[in-house]
Amino acid sequence: MDKTVGFDVENMCKRAKAASFELACESTAKKNAALIRMAVNIENAKDFILAQNGIDIENAVAAGISGAFLDRLTLNDKRIGDMAEGLRQIALLPDPVGEITREWTRPNGLLIKKKRAPIGVVCVIYESRPNVTADVAGLTLKSGNCAVLKGGKEAFNSNVAIADQIVKALKETGISEDAVQIVRDTSRETSAKLLKMNKYIDVIIPRGGESLKKIILEQSSIPVILATAGNCHVYVDKAANLGMAEVIVDNSKTQRPGVCNAMESLLVHVDAADKFLPAIAELLLNKGVELRLCERSRLILESVDTAAIAAHKNLIIDATEEDWGTEYEDMILAVKVVDSLADAIAHINKYGSCHSDAIVTDDSEACEEFLNKVDAAAVYCNASTRFTDGFEFGFGAEIGNSNQKLHARGPIGLEQLTSEKYIVYGSGQIRG
Amino acid sequence: MDKTVGFDVENMCKRAKAASFELACESTAKKNAALIRMAVNIENAKDFILAQNGIDIENAVAAGISGAFLDRLTLNDKRIGDMAEGLRQIALLPDPVGEITREWTRPNGLLIKKKRAPIGVVCVIYESRPNVTADVAGLTLKSGNCAVLKGGKEAFNSNVAIADQIVKALKETGISEDAVQIVRDTSRETSAKLLKMNKYIDVIIPRGGESLKKIILEQSSIPVILATAGNCHVYVDKAANLGMAEVIVDNSKTQRPGVCNAMESLLVHVDAADKFLPAIAELLLNKGVELRLCERSRLILESVDTAAIAAHKNLIIDATEEDWGTEYEDMILAVKVVDSLADAIAHINKYGSCHSDAIVTDDSEACEEFLNKVDAAAVYCNASTRFTDGFEFGFGAEIGNSNQKLHARGPIGLEQLTSEKYIVYGSGQIRG
Repeated sequence: MDKTVGFDVENMCKRAKAASFELACESTAKKNAALIRMAVNIENAKDFILAQNGIDIENAVAAGISGAFLDRLTLNDKRIGDMAEGLRQIALLPDPVGEITREWTRPNGLLIKKKRAPIGVVCVIYESRPNVTADVAGLTLKSGNCAVLKGGKEAFNSNVAIADQIVKALKETGISEDAVQIVRDTSRETSAKLLKMNKYIDVIIPRGGESLKKIILEQSSIPVILATAGNCHVYVDKAANLGMAEVIVDNSKTQRPGVCNAMESLLVHVDAADKFLPAIAELLLNKGVELRLCERSRLILESVDTAAIAAHKNLIIDATEEDWGTEYEDMILAVKVVDSLADAIAHINKYGSCHSDAIVTDDSEACEEFLNKVDAAAVYCNASTRFTDGFEFGFGAEIGNSNQKLHARGPIGLEQLTSEKYIVYGSGQIRG
Repeated sequence: MDKTVGFDVENMCKRAKAASFELACESTAKKNAALIRMAVNIENAKDFILAQNGIDIENAVAAGISGAFLDRLTLNDKRIGDMAEGLRQIALLPDPVGEITREWTRPNGLLIKKKRAPIGVVCVIYESRPNVTADVAGLTLKSGNCAVLKGGKEAFNSNVAIADQIVKALKETGISEDAVQIVRDTSRETSAKLLKMNKYIDVIIPRGGESLKKIILEQSSIPVILATAGNCHVYVDKAANLGMAEVIVDNSKTQRPGVCNAMESLLVHVDAADKFLPAIAELLLNKGVELRLCERSRLILESVDTAAIAAHKNLIIDATEEDWGTEYEDMILAVKVVDSLADAIAHINKYGSCHSDAIVTDDSEACEEFLNKVDAAAVYCNASTRFTDGFEFGFGAEIGNSNQKLHARGPIGLEQLTSEKYIVYGSGQIRG
């Protein structure tokens, strides 16, 4: 398959833009029919998709790629089934397009309605996982947006095979095949050109590593919705229920440490530290969590020196300034004793990434102060940080979790893929 | 006043960020007190502000600046009074911060609230009008945001004089003086540096000419809310009340031609053209509007050749392709006959700027099709395009009209200067 020569990225974007005006007005029924059809087509083409994926895997192995990257690249029966199931789930979600979110009449008689409409053309740039092709195509179609998809070069054959089934489904249901487009070119020039297509693309959503996001943020002339690192905190207040705190800290750190809403730093009020730290340290050390301690927390653990602590000396390390700002996405936790709620909030606002932060407390005033002052997409009182997620919030599937301030904070689901326009009904009003 | 040496833009932004966490939690009463105080201080310092403005005017005249630019730069008693009045008006507007926009409980008992919070640090870059300094400081303060203000170099002394009164008001009411900061440096290096302060600035809003906006969009690593050109259309449908159409077209074009929500192109359905075009042409030509006509509209006007048309031959010009995409902001109108509603919509979506477009029709189906399919921040049926405005929509003062898709379309008022965060109340919930 020729990956680089003669691919006209501008023409692709132009066609996506043209198709977006029609797609914005397609019925929910037709969009759902296309989603179901996509699922069926992907299942039917399973053998071909796996064969194409096999080529990608072979190339990756030959290039020395292994480990987690290779795992993310790899498709199998179950993953293809999950892709199809994901599309069927999106068909079941409510269509956000057309919702009137507000409505009022002005003194001059103008009736103004704020109405949800698709954004237009959504470009998603992602890395190795081929299932993103189907997820994103499904979410953008349901929200009435045309998609421009640019996957990682390692997954090129897999992505094209999946996209072909998606486009086939569009044709079969009478939706313009320009509504979902995949960049059939892996050259750097094309990627760079894509980032300048602000005449045709309305928003870029990068999914993948931090370096990819940094490049896109720096080079794009198109607005970007960014889901960057999640440096999440749990703060155990002096008025915390320490049993509950233990359960929440454990869950936030170890239930799935490799994701963006996992906790990276634990802050403990000085009045709770003597009692709480030894217990939580024992629990986490026994699970293999490496602890990077501030001086005060180290002294507390040294003073108790339980069997668990003694047995895991290799997992106890002094924290450096860098630790407070690091997203480990691993079984590592930075731990700090703070003197007050205010210090905890200041620490989070200084080092955090505006993603998800929690307080554990029985003091309702402390709770409100934390929830109001911590600057994050999602703030929790007495719950795990791991809930920041489209499904957990009840939105269904999502493209990621935004931790920027504009447009949408938190889960980027169907509603977040729309914008609101003003529709105004008059009877001849003019401005005086 | 030293304009360039030793100004530390990074330190300024850092201080704004630090102040933003406190300002986000200030009471409405305190913010309103500061706004009233700003108004009083500006009135009290009128003579000094006018003197500083005099220096700017002198420098501008010496540099050969005249006309509309010089007019925008010039302050007088009335303009200073309007500035103060604007600040008092903002004090009267409702505070958007803290509003719960949605609230629901999940099956696991988590109570999720979506709550309006300030964005954080808002940077506004503007050109010659010194009153923007006060307008923007007022809107950002009321919405709980810290402001970083960068005015045009021609208005430097005026802006600093106004900003000093604003900062004085902050101090007098016990709000951090870092909450409103003005860039006290007019060098290009500082401007370029400002656009890279994404660690401290949450959003940039440019106000001014298109070239300024283009540079910012290309160079900024900070999200931008863009209020670019308004290439607005009125489409007169075959089912239009032509009397109403005449009034709406006249108002959309001539009531204030130099603003972004004024009409730039008139589209007329072919079935209405023979009757409508001669009448509207006569009206507009008599007001001095230059008409740039498509071939069919020219033929229609030639065929009637009324006295008005004969008297204003110099105002009748053939349109070129370029005219359909041009925002004149002047007494010029492009005119095109279209074969159908669909053609009108396609024309607007191809050449428009997603700002404000109107249909005049008595056909409710045509109305709905136009309102749904035209991709603009505000779409009108039977009303002038001139209503896209914070005051006219009932929002009060605004920073501009966004015609991008993300975050906010249309007027950027207090609500649009906030974002929504999720506040989650639990009782020990963890993720399974």
